[in-house]
Amino acid sequence: MIDRNRRGLVLAAGGALATGAVGGMAWAAPSDRKLGYAIVGLGTYGLDVIIPQFKNCRNSRLVALVSGDAAKAKSVAQQYGVPEKNIYNYENYDSIRNNPDIDIVYICLPVSMHAEYTIRAAKAGKHVLCEKPMAVSSAECEAMIAACRQAGKKLMIGYRCHFEPYNLEARRIARSGEIGTLRYFRSEHGFNFRDPNAWRLKKALAGGGSMMDIGIYALNAARYMTGEEPSAVYAQETTNRNDPRFREVEDMLGFQLEFPSGVVGSCMSMYSASQNHILLVGDKGRIDMEPATAYHGNRMWTGKDGREREVTPPPGPGATQFAGQLDHMAQCVLQDREPIVAGEEGLRDLRIIEAIYQSARERRRVVLKA
Amino acid sequence: MIDRNRRGLVLAAGGALATGAVGGMAWAAPSDRKLGYAIVGLGTYGLDVIIPQFKNCRNSRLVALVSGDAAKAKSVAQQYGVPEKNIYNYENYDSIRNNPDIDIVYICLPVSMHAEYTIRAAKAGKHVLCEKPMAVSSAECEAMIAACRQAGKKLMIGYRCHFEPYNLEARRIARSGEIGTLRYFRSEHGFNFRDPNAWRLKKALAGGGSMMDIGIYALNAARYMTGEEPSAVYAQETTNRNDPRFREVEDMLGFQLEFPSGVVGSCMSMYSASQNHILLVGDKGRIDMEPATAYHGNRMWTGKDGREREVTPPPGPGATQFAGQLDHMAQCVLQDREPIVAGEEGLRDLRIIEAIYQSARERRRVVLKA
Repeated sequence: MIDRNRRGLVLAAGGALATGAVGGMAWAAPSDRKLGYAIVGLGTYGLDVIIPQFKNCRNSRLVALVSGDAAKAKSVAQQYGVPEKNIYNYENYDSIRNNPDIDIVYICLPVSMHAEYTIRAAKAGKHVLCEKPMAVSSAECEAMIAACRQAGKKLMIGYRCHFEPYNLEARRIARSGEIGTLRYFRSEHGFNFRDPNAWRLKKALAGGGSMMDIGIYALNAARYMTGEEPSAVYAQETTNRNDPRFREVEDMLGFQLEFPSGVVGSCMSMYSASQNHILLVGDKGRIDMEPATAYHGNRMWTGKDGREREVTPPPGPGATQFAGQLDHMAQCVLQDREPIVAGEEGLRDLRIIEAIYQSARERRRVVLKA
Repeated sequence: MIDRNRRGLVLAAGGALATGAVGGMAWAAPSDRKLGYAIVGLGTYGLDVIIPQFKNCRNSRLVALVSGDAAKAKSVAQQYGVPEKNIYNYENYDSIRNNPDIDIVYICLPVSMHAEYTIRAAKAGKHVLCEKPMAVSSAECEAMIAACRQAGKKLMIGYRCHFEPYNLEARRIARSGEIGTLRYFRSEHGFNFRDPNAWRLKKALAGGGSMMDIGIYALNAARYMTGEEPSAVYAQETTNRNDPRFREVEDMLGFQLEFPSGVVGSCMSMYSASQNHILLVGDKGRIDMEPATAYHGNRMWTGKDGREREVTPPPGPGATQFAGQLDHMAQCVLQDREPIVAGEEGLRDLRIIEAIYQSARERRRVVLKA
C-alpha cells in the first residue's frame, strides 16, 4: 500500500539531500567502506555511463559484471580491474549468491528483464539497484518489492535526478516559498530517436515507447517537484505508425496531471523531437530549467517574468549525480536505511504510466487510486 | 458554417503580412486617405493603448468618442482634437448614423457589451472593429456576423498579434520547414490579477475569467501558428473560490488541443501567475518566444535544443502592431476586402472556448464540430 505520509517522509529525506546532507546532518557519518557492485547488462548505459562513475564514489566499487557477451565482459573486466572469476552470464547469474565480493547488483538491462533479474538477485541474497522504469507493469513492480522484502534486501530505483544538484536546488527553492504558491508544473522531455532497430522501440523489451524512457523524467519530476501524488491523468497520443521507428511503440504523449492542491502538471514525452525542460510557475515567480535532467550541462533560471537570474546550485551529495546515486544505495545498505527512491517510487510511476496509457487509449480522464 | 478552406485562405493572407505585404504585394497600393474611427469605451485599453496609436497610422484617424463619462470624454476629445459634436454616450450612440466623419467604430467595452454595440453600429451603417473575445457566447458572435453582413459592413476582431512582427515571423519560420515537421505547440498566458473589483472578474461582464482575457492569446496562437483547427479539447480548471478575485470566474485552465495532423497544443491560462510564452517544437528545431504577445519587448529564439539564436524579425505591416491593426481594417474598407481576422475568426475561438469550459466542467474530452 502506498500512503501519502510515506511519500512525505521520502521527500523530507530528499530535501536534506539538497544541502549535501546524506550521511551528514541527518544520518550517521558514513564509513569509507566500499561495497561491491555487480553491473548487470553491458549496454550503453551500464558500460558508458555507470561503470566509469565508480572512480567518483566513496562507498561503491565495481567488483563484478553480468553479460551475455563473454568477450565484451572480459574486455571490460580487464579495463576496470574486475577479476575474471567475477564475470557472470545470464545462465550462471544465480551463482552470485556464492560470491561475497558482491553486495549490490545494478540492473541495466532492457525494461522487460528488470523484474526477473531483480527477483533472482534478491533470491541470491543481494541488494538491488534497478534502472527506471522499474518494470513493464505495476504487477511486476509489486513482485519485485515483495521479493526484496522477503529476502530482507534493499531495493532502489535509478532515479538519478534525485541526486542531481540543479533538480535538488529547484526543489529547495520551490519549497522555500521564493516563487510563492505553486500554480503549475510543466516538463517536456524528448529526443529524436535514430535507430529503428533499438530495443527501446520493441514493445516486448521496452514495455512502451517514449513514455517508458525519456517521458518518465517528466512524470517523476512532476512528483518530486510538487511533492504531491497526482489524483487523475489525461493523456493524448500522437504516433505515426507508418514511421518505421513507431511500428510497436508510441512516439508522443501529451499528458496533464491533476494534483490534490490544484497544481496542474502539464507534460510532453516524445521520440520525435528534442526537448529537456522543467518549469515551475508560482504566483510570485518561477523556476525554469533547460536542459533540466541532462547527464551534465544543466542550467536553471529564476525570475518573475522570464529567465532573469541564472542559478548555480550548491554541490549535490556526490561528485556527480551518478556517484551520488551509487553511494546512496551503498550507504543505505551500510546503515540499514530505506533508499529515498525505493521500489515503491518506481511502482508509483508505473501505476501512473499505466493510467496515462489507459487515458490515451480510451480518450478520457483516468482517476488514480489514492 | 466554418469551413477549413476559408481558414486556409485567411492564413495565406496572413502569411503575406509577414513580409509587410498588406496593400503591397497582394493588394492594390492603399491610398493615403484616412478613415475616421469612433472609439467606443474609454477604459484603459481604449484610452491608454489604442487612442495614442492613431499618430502611427497611415489610413486611420480618431474622429469620435463614445463614453458614459461625459467629463472624461470631453477631456480626451480636447487632448486628441476630437470635435465636441463627435462625442457620444450610450443613449445617443445610434445617432452616429448621421455622422459622416465616422467610418469605423472600435468596440473597447467589457465583453458582455460587444454584441449589442457591434449590432447597433452595423445598423447605424458603420464598419466595426471589435475587441477580443468577440462576445460572451458563440450565439452572440453569430448574431454580430449576421448583423454586419445584413448591413453590408465589415466586421473585424482585434487580434493584434496577427499584425505583430515576432508572431508573423514565427509563423513564417514554422511554415518554411526550418524546424521540420511541427510536433507540438505550447503556450502559457497569465498574469497576477490585482484588483478584485475589476469588471474582468465579474461573470456577467466578462463572460468568464482568465480564458476570456489572457487565455485567448494562447488559443488563438495555437490556431494561427499551426494553421489548423482543433478537432477536440480537454481542459482542467483550478480556481480557489475563497480567493476574493475568483468568486465568479475561473483562475487557471490547463487545456490540450488535438489537431488533425497529430500536432498537440498544450496551453495554460491563468489570473494567478505571470507567464507569456509560445513554443513551437518541430522534429528539426524549435521556436521559443518570451514574452510572446506583449505590447512591446517581445523576444524570440530558434535552436535545436534551446535558445541558441535570437531572432529579430523584419518590420510588421504597421509602425506598431496596433497601428497595423487599425490600418488593416481601414484598408479593408477602402478596398472592399475581408479582414484577415474577420468575425468568423472570433466565432471560431468562442466555439472552442465554450468546448474548453464544457470539458473542464464535465471532466472529459470534448469533440469539436468540423
